[in-house]
Amino acid sequence: MSEVVHSSGARQERVTRYRIGEGVESAERDDLIAVEDPLEIRIDGESWSITMRTPGDDLDLVAGFLVGEGLITQPDHLAGLGHVGDAVFGNTVNATLGAGATPPADAAARHSVMTSACGICGTESIDAIEKQARWELDSDDMVVAATMIATLPDRLREAQTLFDSTGGVHAAGLFTAAGDMLCVREDVGRHNAVDKVVGWALRQGMLPLRGTVLQVSGRASFELVQKARLAGIPMLAAVGAPSSLSRDLAESSGLTLVGFSRGNGFSVYTHPRRVVPGT
Amino acid sequence: MSEVVHSSGARQERVTRYRIGEGVESAERDDLIAVEDPLEIRIDGESWSITMRTPGDDLDLVAGFLVGEGLITQPDHLAGLGHVGDAVFGNTVNATLGAGATPPADAAARHSVMTSACGICGTESIDAIEKQARWELDSDDMVVAATMIATLPDRLREAQTLFDSTGGVHAAGLFTAAGDMLCVREDVGRHNAVDKVVGWALRQGMLPLRGTVLQVSGRASFELVQKARLAGIPMLAAVGAPSSLSRDLAESSGLTLVGFSRGNGFSVYTHPRRVVPGT
Repeated sequence: MSEVVHSSGARQERVTRYRIGEGVESAERDDLIAVEDPLEIRIDGESWSITMRTPGDDLDLVAGFLVGEGLITQPDHLAGLGHVGDAVFGNTVNATLGAGATPPADAAARHSVMTSACGICGTESIDAIEKQARWELDSDDMVVAATMIATLPDRLREAQTLFDSTGGVHAAGLFTAAGDMLCVREDVGRHNAVDKVVGWALRQGMLPLRGTVLQVSGRASFELVQKARLAGIPMLAAVGAPSSLSRDLAESSGLTLVGFSRGNGFSVYTHPRRVVPGT
Repeated sequence: MSEVVHSSGARQERVTRYRIGEGVESAERDDLIAVEDPLEIRIDGESWSITMRTPGDDLDLVAGFLVGEGLITQPDHLAGLGHVGDAVFGNTVNATLGAGATPPADAAARHSVMTSACGICGTESIDAIEKQARWELDSDDMVVAATMIATLPDRLREAQTLFDSTGGVHAAGLFTAAGDMLCVREDVGRHNAVDKVVGWALRQGMLPLRGTVLQVSGRASFELVQKARLAGIPMLAAVGAPSSLSRDLAESSGLTLVGFSRGNGFSVYTHPRRVVPGT
């Protein structure tokens, strides 16, 4: 295993690249691949979850994860947040809940491993998934120009540094309704990228994220709709497709769900009132 | 919520489609979106896991899931497998383990929900992830032509029926080293598509799947490498990128990991000895 680390997010590996054209050519070369490492999340010193993530912005990741779990909504709900020195795994972060936080309902049920592709593992039942959000989105009368929405996938892609080197990471970007870019994060896991954005916003005291659009690089999956909802984001736009479950949660949450968003158009699945043509 | 169901895998929804060109056009139309529904998996009558999946091939899905958990490796390890009538959720499948099966180590730790994007949730520690496979792959001396490998992404795509209608599902396809297509399955979750393929093969008595290639539509993620390993598949080929963790598991498992596979080429990350130029 080569151990050349170019940044915390990418690692160099020897690769055999095949090209198929008139004939078959192969050549060895060094490529960068995205790093995926376990992060143990502790709450008040108790092991709570292990997520597979791309290292970087770990504290934002944990803060955003706790927002998505419905435990915290403002900075002072975190009395402490930091890496633990005696970590068993490569990285461990402990979050100390403050006054006003909602302690986890069943800590024992949550000692689980999540992959980089998963965002809501470990909960006990389907009912538990539709967590109670502290804000309702219906009253958010944000209006966004279609012409602006169509620019977001390219702008997100251009802001991705790790994707350029590895070709293998997802991204999430938070934008104002006017199109200003607030925060972009990358990770091998879609849900981690969103957690990093939401955690950044929480620590800035910006929740609920009224009047914002969250653009993601992949599918509009159920857990991303849930994370947007719990952060108070009224519009989720995805490059890929929604599922029936993500559409239904968006519909019942008052969230505008945009899918198949490319430079030349997009589809609005729920609450289209927030989209206007623009200029 | 509209309830027009075109097949078990897709549902019709009203969508507002925006086109951005010289001006901005919008029109309402009916689109199909991929269905994502919870499936409760029971082992010997005990609730074990809930996975978000696209309905269809549920029994194969559960059989393949149990292979990926390291519990079963041959058809008679399943004494029974079927839908449960009094399901709490939309769908429940119970698997009755037979003689020779490995009962789950800690049933209590596994009552968890998995998203459509996640395949290894609920295990107790990182060590538990690298499950002991019953077969080692190093001795599989399969050789595959590079020209054949390069054809697999297009052949998988052409075999996808649900993707054509919804644009929103992943696929996994099992091929022989000579390029014969054995089984193709689709699902909103990458890991579910692989579980459906592996479960189909298990129920045919085909495990270990020596001399085969598993082509997947998305990233070469860690959990897909693990599932291939536990099914005895010596080569995993992905349209997307690997992560450091998936590469390391492939390396230590003796599995040939192919990434960025398109019609005109691909990259081999581990054990390149199984790839020859071909004609």
